[in-house]
Amino acid sequence: MKEKYIFIGVIGGSEVSPQINQLAEEVGREIARQSAVLVCGGLGGVMEAACKGASDAGGLTIGILPGDNRQTANPYVKIPIVTGIGYARNVAVVKSSQAVIAIDGSYGTLTEIGHALQSGIPVIGLKTWSISMDDKIDNNIILAKNPKEAVARAIALLE
Amino acid sequence: MKEKYIFIGVIGGSEVSPQINQLAEEVGREIARQSAVLVCGGLGGVMEAACKGASDAGGLTIGILPGDNRQTANPYVKIPIVTGIGYARNVAVVKSSQAVIAIDGSYGTLTEIGHALQSGIPVIGLKTWSISMDDKIDNNIILAKNPKEAVARAIALLE
Amino acid sequence: MKEKYIFIGVIGGSEVSPQINQLAEEVGREIARQSAVLVCGGLGGVMEAACKGASDAGGLTIGILPGDNRQTANPYVKIPIVTGIGYARNVAVVKSSQAVIAIDGSYGTLTEIGHALQSGIPVIGLKTWSISMDDKIDNNIILAKNPKEAVARAIALLE
Amino acid sequence: MKEKYIFIGVIGGSEVSPQINQLAEEVGREIARQSAVLVCGGLGGVMEAACKGASDAGGLTIGILPGDNRQTANPYVKIPIVTGIGYARNVAVVKSSQAVIAIDGSYGTLTEIGHALQSGIPVIGLKTWSISMDDKIDNNIILAKNPKEAVARAIALLE
Repeated sequence: MKEKYIFIGVIGGSEVSPQINQLAEEVGREIARQSAVLVCGGLGGVMEAACKGASDAGGLTIGILPGDNRQTANPYVKIPIVTGIGYARNVAVVKSSQAVIAIDGSYGTLTEIGHALQSGIPVIGLKTWSISMDDKIDNNIILAKNPKEAVARAIALLE
Repeated sequence: MKEKYIFIGVIGGSEVSPQINQLAEEVGREIARQSAVLVCGGLGGVMEAACKGASDAGGLTIGILPGDNRQTANPYVKIPIVTGIGYARNVAVVKSSQAVIAIDGSYGTLTEIGHALQSGIPVIGLKTWSISMDDKIDNNIILAKNPKEAVARAIALLE
Repeated sequence: MKEKYIFIGVIGGSEVSPQINQLAEEVGREIARQSAVLVCGGLGGVMEAACKGASDAGGLTIGILPGDNRQTANPYVKIPIVTGIGYARNVAVVKSSQAVIAIDGSYGTLTEIGHALQSGIPVIGLKTWSISMDDKIDNNIILAKNPKEAVARAIALLE
Repeated sequence: MKEKYIFIGVIGGSEVSPQINQLAEEVGREIARQSAVLVCGGLGGVMEAACKGASDAGGLTIGILPGDNRQTANPYVKIPIVTGIGYARNVAVVKSSQAVIAIDGSYGTLTEIGHALQSGIPVIGLKTWSISMDDKIDNNIILAKNPKEAVARAIALLE
């Protein structure tokens, strides 16, 4: 019989402040505590901090890498997926997640938010991009106040 | 000797209002008048209107398609590129352009804006997304008032 | 501390004879017995049989899917990776593996053999394609006589 | 009204002998003489020679590049498509062609032959891979004796 894992993505920049790093680590830890599997882009910054948090709490971590080399994964990735397709792998990070938590944000994170919203995958935001059209903010990015709330909302949306 | 074409991308949704359609057609026409080659995602809406404008003015049009079938290109695409990689082709639309003009915007357009800004490719916006972080608008999306100005700015940035 | 998994790919057609099906199931079972993780394209035929074998023996199975929908994974895939990039995902199947075992073979399998050999990833063949140039067989596809030998060779090559 | 171009792909290694180089150049020249557009991977070796031949005969050449940089295109590519998806771009080279001519062949060429046959795109071979299964040669790679015959066969298959 197939175990049913829940897959939650964490997206965010590869170079971030210590404060954002701590947020990401707490998000990762909380994902593991909720018995979900963490999906991310496998590199540094938000991705590494989240994987560290999940790993410390005994969780499973998947890193979907842009390049050709599994050695580029951060040390907390247990399952490296080596795509070789560059930043087009952002699509796979998002689609492999049932909900994504966006933290801070580089332009890469913006592409992932777009791909998720386009695919109908819920996006929960923690200090991330706000997007608007004709001066109206798009409320499809669900705002969370802290890591615990972000993960709780992601999981609630899947049930 | 290699002719040196200039490649300008037009990005925007596949279902748009008549007003946006007209904007896109004028952008396409102006690109052709400036002897540039139009690059787009090859489908309907903004993409089709821009290709029609360029085609009417005698320009060359490239449609980088998501699917497996060249017949999905709009009738004004002269060079269909059939990628078969789905919306990951958005990356190729952007990277094949030396500057992109974003018109209106679906979430797909948001991903293309993100991929362009991440790659250092100039983005000119016409009634498109505005993005902000910590309540500060990101000014890397260059605003244009009309199609003519949008194309002029795109070309000026390449010289 | 990071557990060090070994990742072995199984490639092969999605429609196969009962005999090939059994071979694939034995390969999957043996991969799990050797404590390696099975990587495949996540669909039916060889992929499903190998996942069933690995799953029955308590192993971890990764299915790197071409489409947009995690429901397309066969029931023995524990970790579905949803790429949305169509058959370009064959590259990711191969690159995510440290060695691949090719069984039988559709044209898709031929592309995977090519991508593996191009990337320097060992290919072990069980009743699969033979390729030759100028009437000389390319011996980089290592022939195995049975599932047990195929897995043993794959693992030996990684040590 | 849309002009109807015919698109013929040329696939082959990036490092080849002078003899193969000459074959590729003749293939390119013949494609242009038949008023078809040449599609290739945009780099050196067979790709460059074919583009040179087509370009000398006044033809249009499209190079679908693996990397992020249009400067990597060979000097005879008029339309560079910058995919950024690495060797997954082989799929796009093949799918953007209505028939492909395989010359000589690296493992990359083998992947392209596989992707073409999988997609039902005719493959004409000139001193390229032969593939067999259970000691039977797969005759779906159509053999041609020389460049002129290769191009004639490719075009005949489209009519």
